[in-house]
Amino acid sequence: MSKQDKEFVKEITPQSEDYSQWYLDVVLKAQMMDYSPVKGCMVIRPYGFTLWENMQQGLDKRIKATGHKNAYFPLFIPESLLQKEADHVEGFAPEVAWVTHGGNEKLAERLVVRPTSETIICEMYSRWIQSYRDLPVLINQWCNVVRWEKVTRPFLRTSEFLWQEGHTAHRNEEEAEEETLKMLEVYRDFVENDLAVPLFVGRKTENEKFAGALRTYSIEALMSDGKALQAGTSHNLGTHFAKVFEITYLDRDGELKFVWQTSWGVSTRLIGAIIMVHGDDRGLVLPPKVAPTQVVLVPIAPKKVREEVLVKAAILYEELRAAEIRVEMDDREEYSPGWKFNEWEMKGVPLRIEVGPRDLEAGQAMLARRDTGGKETVSLEELMTRVPALLAEIQANMYEKAKKFRDDNTHRTDDYAEFKQIIEEKRGFVLSRWCGDSACELAVKEETKATIRCVPFNMETSPGKCLHCSTESTKLVYFARAY
Amino acid sequence: MSKQDKEFVKEITPQSEDYSQWYLDVVLKAQMMDYSPVKGCMVIRPYGFTLWENMQQGLDKRIKATGHKNAYFPLFIPESLLQKEADHVEGFAPEVAWVTHGGNEKLAERLVVRPTSETIICEMYSRWIQSYRDLPVLINQWCNVVRWEKVTRPFLRTSEFLWQEGHTAHRNEEEAEEETLKMLEVYRDFVENDLAVPLFVGRKTENEKFAGALRTYSIEALMSDGKALQAGTSHNLGTHFAKVFEITYLDRDGELKFVWQTSWGVSTRLIGAIIMVHGDDRGLVLPPKVAPTQVVLVPIAPKKVREEVLVKAAILYEELRAAEIRVEMDDREEYSPGWKFNEWEMKGVPLRIEVGPRDLEAGQAMLARRDTGGKETVSLEELMTRVPALLAEIQANMYEKAKKFRDDNTHRTDDYAEFKQIIEEKRGFVLSRWCGDSACELAVKEETKATIRCVPFNMETSPGKCLHCSTESTKLVYFARAY
Repeated sequence: MSKQDKEFVKEITPQSEDYSQWYLDVVLKAQMMDYSPVKGCMVIRPYGFTLWENMQQGLDKRIKATGHKNAYFPLFIPESLLQKEADHVEGFAPEVAWVTHGGNEKLAERLVVRPTSETIICEMYSRWIQSYRDLPVLINQWCNVVRWEKVTRPFLRTSEFLWQEGHTAHRNEEEAEEETLKMLEVYRDFVENDLAVPLFVGRKTENEKFAGALRTYSIEALMSDGKALQAGTSHNLGTHFAKVFEITYLDRDGELKFVWQTSWGVSTRLIGAIIMVHGDDRGLVLPPKVAPTQVVLVPIAPKKVREEVLVKAAILYEELRAAEIRVEMDDREEYSPGWKFNEWEMKGVPLRIEVGPRDLEAGQAMLARRDTGGKETVSLEELMTRVPALLAEIQANMYEKAKKFRDDNTHRTDDYAEFKQIIEEKRGFVLSRWCGDSACELAVKEETKATIRCVPFNMETSPGKCLHCSTESTKLVYFARAY
Repeated sequence: MSKQDKEFVKEITPQSEDYSQWYLDVVLKAQMMDYSPVKGCMVIRPYGFTLWENMQQGLDKRIKATGHKNAYFPLFIPESLLQKEADHVEGFAPEVAWVTHGGNEKLAERLVVRPTSETIICEMYSRWIQSYRDLPVLINQWCNVVRWEKVTRPFLRTSEFLWQEGHTAHRNEEEAEEETLKMLEVYRDFVENDLAVPLFVGRKTENEKFAGALRTYSIEALMSDGKALQAGTSHNLGTHFAKVFEITYLDRDGELKFVWQTSWGVSTRLIGAIIMVHGDDRGLVLPPKVAPTQVVLVPIAPKKVREEVLVKAAILYEELRAAEIRVEMDDREEYSPGWKFNEWEMKGVPLRIEVGPRDLEAGQAMLARRDTGGKETVSLEELMTRVPALLAEIQANMYEKAKKFRDDNTHRTDDYAEFKQIIEEKRGFVLSRWCGDSACELAVKEETKATIRCVPFNMETSPGKCLHCSTESTKLVYFARAY
């Protein structure tokens, strides 16, 4: 490795030295984002945005396959609308941006820049829904939302972020609950399969649920520093919003009833999850299914054979493109191969193909994996079958590796002293008995900074004692410190 | 036609009676949009939004094929940034929404909700661009923008709208001009081929150019009421923004130079163009390439053979779906076939397939075109080849029909009396000699409400007299009253 090449890597702070700085170094250096002149708002640069587009494609397909259609509701919400649902306004009012003037005039009523769209969507649903024939209403929107955050971190918590928010209306509790859990499963399937991020899935406690929801469910991931990240939520809103927005329908039995509603969302925060689950000291490691570039082709050619190598590399490039593989050719003359390898590794490209004159003579190419660092020589005839197979292998391996890390860092104890030690020294998830009382939950949070990430499904256990108050309980929950 | 069926159509005001009301009736009744509780902001309902998604797909593909990548810049722009370029702020400041408070605190500096993103993007480009190696920068973003409009009309002019805005930086004027015209051509190709809307293309006058641009080009369409609509613009920004934002690069020759920039955009306004170019008294007529539903399948089945007909219709439905045709099955029992025909015609679905028991016995189906109203019987064996062919025919016919209307309503005169009469009585485009003086342009606008829509390329003519001031001129321009 030349001095230049070493310095390149040195610019990324090692995870073990300062994880937060590692994260910032990686997102900036890989040109995923940049800071903007507006406090707390970031620019998503083309490399980061292409990743988001690929993620959108994978999720949007699933959202449509489950019968939903996309729509678009206004960015602005009149103050009076936001205030209709008491819990909702209490949750969001402290963190919204206010528009007070339009053009040169002061507005008669202040407008909120949407922090989420339940209220304005409910207002519309109350006009659109009259009869059971109008139900279910299954609508999703992809948009920007704004929450005025004091402490921000790229992708994880920014004052403006991009997301999708689904909003549905149903005839009764059963249908609403089915929808809520169906979308939770859509998220699990998407995040585990496309992003290779293993999840714990479950219900949020009353303390942690969405402002205005009856029940909130979430998918929870473990970052490689041992902190958890809430990666998506799905809410059964009950009839809370229907009652204040008067969303009623005439049912088959002739009775006027309130609709049951759900809402669910994931955001650009998922990009943060990908970075922190898979990244390493060399930079990003991106899952092939969503990587902006899946394969980088690096011709390695001394001057005298340069033309010949480039021509053959160009043929390979076209073949890969024709096979719908997202491939980039790096034939820049001003950089050494070592520098290029480092750069593409830092950018997390899953697979590198090196093509040199000796390889070509032998009718082969060298493949280097980003996930394991493994290298293999493949004959040019096999290349077009080996590359897609290897990308699938990398995707599967990344998931397995992350799952092993998650499982190795998921502990089981009902002993509070041990719990505190794990949270302080090892982090990760701790599966513990909890009595179900909010007071205990808040005390644990106060004393350890760990929160209940979710109450997993089907995990009732033999009677035992609550982690904190020793009341008898059969309920197991996942605790963790979280982003 | 039953009474019920007649009443359905009666709900749309005829174009000849009140064109504006016809437009509003159609967009509301076809569920393209709805009014929102925020003045001037609309809700784009699933049917309208699916149309927009199909349009986005067609245009995004072209934007990427010409080397651009998508990114995302913040919604908010600090007041001081907006004010940097004098013409720009003068053009936009009167119509922006101001954010003055975040959470419970007053902001130190007011923020503008982006009316367009030149300023914030320039601020970023000044950080990203150092060397000629960094050029060109070719970035596009799809987003919402806000312009506080006093008079609004669905899709055509709303306080918030959706659009794409491309922003590029280049080494010199030649490259910037090439880019500006290349994207104008991308728009022309997209709008004429995918939306079946014929265009005049040309340069905007100094009066009509974008606030801050060196040169603006536009595509101009003719609505069926004889008014023109600016359907997209592409700007060569020169070095105006580069100078105030200090976007410089070290060129190959070692000199520090200002970049040349372009920006270009089209918006949800194009949906208004589709409606007003193709729609008729029965409602929407949507071009097959972007129609949310390309084919509607209506089984017509008396009770005793209902099951049998539905089974066969379901097979057809699956075949059409498998062929990637966007098809809907309308097997609702509560509506008559006549009612359904009216509804799908109102929604502008290009092709209807009727399947009844006698048709099936004869091994055939009835196809009804929305554009001409023409019907034909097709054997079931031929159906899967005939449907795509017919959709292509409809697309081509819609373009030809609109082009004929446009050409029939494009007049040629340099006589101001005749000009005034045409603008008043026939409307349409008027191609006239113009001296090039802004004073004449503004006088014509004042006296006739007609503006110069564009100065077409390569249309110099023999010397003659300016329409208004009789100064000798060889310049021909398109005038029209415009939306």
